[in-house]
Amino acid sequence: MPKLSETEKEARRRRVLEGARRCFARYGYDGATVVRLERQIGLSRGAIFNWFPSKQDLFLALAAEDNTRLHALFAEEGFDALLEAVTEDEPDWLAVYLEFGRLLKADAGLRERWLAIAPPEARQRSRARIETGQAAGDLRTDMSADELGQFLGVVIDGIVSQRALGFDPPASDLVRRLVTDAIAARNQEGRG
Amino acid sequence: MPKLSETEKEARRRRVLEGARRCFARYGYDGATVVRLERQIGLSRGAIFNWFPSKQDLFLALAAEDNTRLHALFAEEGFDALLEAVTEDEPDWLAVYLEFGRLLKADAGLRERWLAIAPPEARQRSRARIETGQAAGDLRTDMSADELGQFLGVVIDGIVSQRALGFDPPASDLVRRLVTDAIAARNQEGRG
Repeated sequence: MPKLSETEKEARRRRVLEGARRCFARYGYDGATVVRLERQIGLSRGAIFNWFPSKQDLFLALAAEDNTRLHALFAEEGFDALLEAVTEDEPDWLAVYLEFGRLLKADAGLRERWLAIAPPEARQRSRARIETGQAAGDLRTDMSADELGQFLGVVIDGIVSQRALGFDPPASDLVRRLVTDAIAARNQEGRG
Repeated sequence: MPKLSETEKEARRRRVLEGARRCFARYGYDGATVVRLERQIGLSRGAIFNWFPSKQDLFLALAAEDNTRLHALFAEEGFDALLEAVTEDEPDWLAVYLEFGRLLKADAGLRERWLAIAPPEARQRSRARIETGQAAGDLRTDMSADELGQFLGVVIDGIVSQRALGFDPPASDLVRRLVTDAIAARNQEGRG
């Protein structure tokens, strides 16, 4: 095999990831056979699995991309932008997460890997955004930044799950107003 | 076949539903084959499908039971009780919902049936609870009772989805406080 430059390597890796994403969205996780992956990516199985040792690793890499992107969006632009993004993601792609969920459920080791798919820096930047809001007096401080983040995660997962099943979640503006109020500092003050 | 009394019929129907619930939770939706359903229920396929024309109908009947129970819980005891219930439901059972989701996603007719699994009275009683809270000045009125209900649904679905995948959602008390604050009347007043 001729040696690829770093730029060529990165282009090749992107091609594998983008083709795999299309393939999973189109056929589902189980339905994305090696033959279909080859066809959508346009590379042989040898070339594909040279980059990612297994289909599971391929999906984890895509989930890590999503996760990193969503953390960056939240850290830079806030909850509204995050909400907008998951409201625009393709339902066919979101449904792959639910399907992959069966593997997660059955495998504690995989769940560990899953919880760590976003790089620590990405998660740290999300937490920092919440902490900054708390320090500025905008967000409530009777709960930790991690706890507020976990709540935002539940809401996002609820929307993803509804969209993945083919249902329309409530309007983004409605969710945004309710979540913004839930985590606002004034609710802490309103308390006895 | 000897004629069953109404009481015997009801007992037979319950036996089918309870056995099917165990079978789905244990083997998953796809894994719940007719042979396994027969074994868990302790009745022949003829007797089982006499009550429910298909596996899909069997699962819809179980989902309808859950849905009716959760609506009643919310209508009578409120969001805390609903939250408690989904936090206690067996993850193996919740995971069947995610698996069934693939069918829902692929079939608009099934989604219509799904949206109607809870009897109208059950949904009406849930809405009435929210309306009563609004009339009493406890819950915000800048959003309709239906909209507030949809938001509660997103939070519940987020928790169900996390638990179905084998993860621990945030503590119920945390979620309860944040959701209670989100829908409280004071947030409407706090607005300019």
